[in-house]
Amino acid sequence: MLSEFDIIRTCFEQEGLAATPGDSVIQGIGDDCGLIKVPANKMLAFSMDTLVADIHFPAAAAPELIASRALAVNLSDLAATGAKPLVFTLGLTIPEANQPWLVAFAAGLKTMAKEFNCYLIGGDMSRGPLTITIEVKGLVDDGQAILRAGACPGDRIYITQSLGCAALALLMFEGNLNDVLPAEQEIINRAFYRPEPRINAALALSGLVSAGIDISDGLLADLRHICEQSKCSATLNLSQIPLHPLVEKYLGHAAGLTKALSAGDDYELILTVSAAQEQAFLEAASVLPEKFTCIGEIIEQHEAHTVSCIDENGSIVSSTRAGNGGYMHFQGDD
Amino acid sequence: MLSEFDIIRTCFEQEGLAATPGDSVIQGIGDDCGLIKVPANKMLAFSMDTLVADIHFPAAAAPELIASRALAVNLSDLAATGAKPLVFTLGLTIPEANQPWLVAFAAGLKTMAKEFNCYLIGGDMSRGPLTITIEVKGLVDDGQAILRAGACPGDRIYITQSLGCAALALLMFEGNLNDVLPAEQEIINRAFYRPEPRINAALALSGLVSAGIDISDGLLADLRHICEQSKCSATLNLSQIPLHPLVEKYLGHAAGLTKALSAGDDYELILTVSAAQEQAFLEAASVLPEKFTCIGEIIEQHEAHTVSCIDENGSIVSSTRAGNGGYMHFQGDD
Repeated sequence: MLSEFDIIRTCFEQEGLAATPGDSVIQGIGDDCGLIKVPANKMLAFSMDTLVADIHFPAAAAPELIASRALAVNLSDLAATGAKPLVFTLGLTIPEANQPWLVAFAAGLKTMAKEFNCYLIGGDMSRGPLTITIEVKGLVDDGQAILRAGACPGDRIYITQSLGCAALALLMFEGNLNDVLPAEQEIINRAFYRPEPRINAALALSGLVSAGIDISDGLLADLRHICEQSKCSATLNLSQIPLHPLVEKYLGHAAGLTKALSAGDDYELILTVSAAQEQAFLEAASVLPEKFTCIGEIIEQHEAHTVSCIDENGSIVSSTRAGNGGYMHFQGDD
Repeated sequence: MLSEFDIIRTCFEQEGLAATPGDSVIQGIGDDCGLIKVPANKMLAFSMDTLVADIHFPAAAAPELIASRALAVNLSDLAATGAKPLVFTLGLTIPEANQPWLVAFAAGLKTMAKEFNCYLIGGDMSRGPLTITIEVKGLVDDGQAILRAGACPGDRIYITQSLGCAALALLMFEGNLNDVLPAEQEIINRAFYRPEPRINAALALSGLVSAGIDISDGLLADLRHICEQSKCSATLNLSQIPLHPLVEKYLGHAAGLTKALSAGDDYELILTVSAAQEQAFLEAASVLPEKFTCIGEIIEQHEAHTVSCIDENGSIVSSTRAGNGGYMHFQGDD
């Protein structure tokens, strides 16, 4: 049986995955603490996400895919804050020291680490039910962080790309999506296991937006978080919400829209933009590979922090309920 | 059923537990990322530890105790680095949103947070097998971090307080320690659930030591980590190793010594001190509440990074074996 130290050395202390000493990294893997320097004009941004086997991903999934999802969902939080990735720590709990699994898992992390310039700087490994906790750390210029607070009435609400494809993956895993073509399976799998952290878009636009969040809990729930923190409400134009083409194909428009509103896991960004900045925002966005769609507007402050959905006739067809902070699932009838 | 957001608000966003904006904390709980500033002349030190139910603690233990252990073992890593605690993130995986359990768990964290001035700044909560991952963050002056590397031949090896009491706790939990008096049970329980992070000692002594580590894997294993990183070997004088009085009482000296050498969980510090600094070190240590004992010496560099144990006659009675990094359990016969 390999010891924890052997496993760490063999799998995780490899070039291209482990952080090496440099401008910001003073001490990497191998001491009681990692040590980093943060430049004087910057803040350290960090976010921790835990993925539990058979809750957040199928335990039998390929370890490379589990790794890419675990790091991607964390990097997405840095994107939501407009922070540039720097390093991450990994708390890995595994039932046994399965070396082939660990080698493949480390390879998945390495691919992501190199792509996003975000390297492993420490963590912990334990025996137990398969659970992956990652904390990413990034740097953001003072005063430039994108927060959930900051949206103002009149701000327009944009999202990146399209919604719903990650929800299709869950249906596919459960055997509830039939006759999916191999090329489509690949797209759907990728939406779930390798969502695209919108880092470059966030870095390009952070100075032009008033608030932002990534869609991990679902469009309505996450927009509501912006409303709560910004002490405002919002309207969503249902006809403007961009559904992924495969969502339209397999679920149809109405069911697809419900998924897009309530299902999480897409990791697209919601960004709010003031009227004064909108032209500059659209110009900056136009050179990015992502598509940006205006899907609604921030409206006057409202105690209930309500998100109201408006159909193509301008009628309010639903709204999230007020309450003590909890998000009520979209029902289409309230 | 309470939502994740309700639980966070109710249990964790309370005064005295959650970090509030201040000099270093720019954004606390409630956004995609936490944000901190690190002063220009300091480094950020951080360490992540995961505790798995029924591996690292009994699942049925009082939630306050689980919380204090989870934070204490992390704070101990900051102590080992000579860093001053600042904030921590919490990845909590729980089978269900059991509010009384969460309230008690949060109360345990709060007591520790206030005692060590180290507040909760974010994290994640998931459904799944009870697992607690904490990452503590602290600040250390540039060039003042205590590392595992840095010990030199001739340096003396000191440890804080005494060893073995946490190992007694494991025996007690397993029903293998009989007729323990109630006051002793309290001492033994505390050694396991509330080990003392030697923060103040480390801050007072960090400029006077050449290397350090906290004892989480056992005295031999952790001293070996210093030897590996410092590219040296060490001798340990068995007769000098301070055993906890209850270890002497319940295990006797010989079995107690074996426990002290090989069992982890005591979270005392090993500190190496050069001859030039020893007088200043002992003077600074003399005003601290901890007892410091010299238990051995760093010896010439040696490929095998061997830790040799010496009995009262000066004979080597055992040594850790060389190998590819793994620690071989102390056997007393090699």
